[in-house]
Amino acid sequence: MSRFAYVNGRYLPSRDACVNVEDRGYQFADGVYEVCEVRGGRLVDAPRHLARLQRSLSELRIAMPMPLVSIEFIMHETVRRNRVDYGLVYLQITRGVARRDHAFPVTAVKPSIVVTAKNLSYEKNQAAAKSGIAVITTPENRWPRVDIKSVSLLPNVLAKQQAKEKGASEAWFVDRDGCVTEGSSSNAWIITRDGRVVTRPADNYILSGITRAVLMNVLEALQLRLEERAFTPEESYDAAEAFITSASQIVMPVIKIDDRIIGDGKPGSVSQRLRDEFHRFAYFS
Amino acid sequence: MSRFAYVNGRYLPSRDACVNVEDRGYQFADGVYEVCEVRGGRLVDAPRHLARLQRSLSELRIAMPMPLVSIEFIMHETVRRNRVDYGLVYLQITRGVARRDHAFPVTAVKPSIVVTAKNLSYEKNQAAAKSGIAVITTPENRWPRVDIKSVSLLPNVLAKQQAKEKGASEAWFVDRDGCVTEGSSSNAWIITRDGRVVTRPADNYILSGITRAVLMNVLEALQLRLEERAFTPEESYDAAEAFITSASQIVMPVIKIDDRIIGDGKPGSVSQRLRDEFHRFAYFS
Repeated sequence: MSRFAYVNGRYLPSRDACVNVEDRGYQFADGVYEVCEVRGGRLVDAPRHLARLQRSLSELRIAMPMPLVSIEFIMHETVRRNRVDYGLVYLQITRGVARRDHAFPVTAVKPSIVVTAKNLSYEKNQAAAKSGIAVITTPENRWPRVDIKSVSLLPNVLAKQQAKEKGASEAWFVDRDGCVTEGSSSNAWIITRDGRVVTRPADNYILSGITRAVLMNVLEALQLRLEERAFTPEESYDAAEAFITSASQIVMPVIKIDDRIIGDGKPGSVSQRLRDEFHRFAYFS
Repeated sequence: MSRFAYVNGRYLPSRDACVNVEDRGYQFADGVYEVCEVRGGRLVDAPRHLARLQRSLSELRIAMPMPLVSIEFIMHETVRRNRVDYGLVYLQITRGVARRDHAFPVTAVKPSIVVTAKNLSYEKNQAAAKSGIAVITTPENRWPRVDIKSVSLLPNVLAKQQAKEKGASEAWFVDRDGCVTEGSSSNAWIITRDGRVVTRPADNYILSGITRAVLMNVLEALQLRLEERAFTPEESYDAAEAFITSASQIVMPVIKIDDRIIGDGKPGSVSQRLRDEFHRFAYFS
């Protein structure tokens, strides 16, 4: 757990970092969040995360509680106070505290803002990338606005737990058309046997990942062919490589999907290269 | 707002009633809730609410934090401390506080439990029932497990807000088959011109309402014909009467659906009778 958290204007020891029980984030999942990677104590791609935050808030008509530059300052300060060198910073904004009623509060309330930061084990993450991970597929059962990065994550929680119980690290949702949307906390990618890098277009059915967006710059620079289209689990079984992207895992090679071995069962060379090159294209602040 | 709230073992003044920012209810909507009506300081149908609570927790594999009898005692005590005569008691249980990770915590954590209670205006509620309310319809966009009474309520929030902005009090979700599932915080009913009382069967696509269940006993006692089946908005426009049920509104007559006047534009006589008779069949504790 984060040792210090920023909560509505104050930096508090984690155990005192509290929000009111009538915070609409707690009673209605009426809030949004962002997770940024921290490397060498610096934020990775913070401006893109903050731009997405702004969009999520705007879609839910939650007021921006302070200028983005102030939010970025708080994220930095939370990282510093927790002495995070390699890890994550987590930011959550909800509609605020109000007498319980589904509709938005009649008189405007101040949005709540929480920032936490924690160290991760770089070695453990690298080791996972070296061996590759397994994923399962599961029917899509989330609402059709997962492009909004809201804390309404119960289906994601259940999918991730299901993956874990099947010895996998991630679950890919499969929609009614039989196509993969994304993972429970990551975007899904495959590389075809003729070298095309395939991922689903960013519509309302996936989150437009920041790592996903930066990776597209990497692909361009490395002159790899990007194909933004939906793919099926069957196509992924037969892919040369597969991987997932997220702020916490960057490019994480997938070696097994639904008990089918991908490629030769080892992380693919292109996936590994994308992982290695990624931070050359990231923005550090 | 509730003046006193029960939070994890203590009764606290509302402004001090807090949960940790890493409570999974706040970060993942990983929790469930119940709302009971309070009349004359007594709980209405508490045993049925607690049975449903038990089911919701079990579906999410969240441990029951204490025996149901203790939960009921806390609900009573919260009502008493807030001097609620007519109003609501709200109960929320989440998976607890843990370092953020989508999957369930590896080492079991103690579920969080929060209880609040508030007075409502009986006169205002009765006045609304006398004039009847308007509802709109909106496409169903919730996940297919709304039978679990989880706090993952963001789509419900947005639907209710949409209704409000259109001058209505409730939004009925309409599924891909063109049938009404339920309201954003209530079950939906119509009465046909030949006197059949119609409501959707309790599948995974609606919450099995307690008021809905008790009302079925009322219908039986009054020898009214119940038809548990899906209905379309078009059928509802042409109905003799329409109403919604929920713990906070009991039977609330609907006089307008999507700008179509229902019946003669006044609360129907059967709806009013069901509202008047309801509490004869309710269980008070």
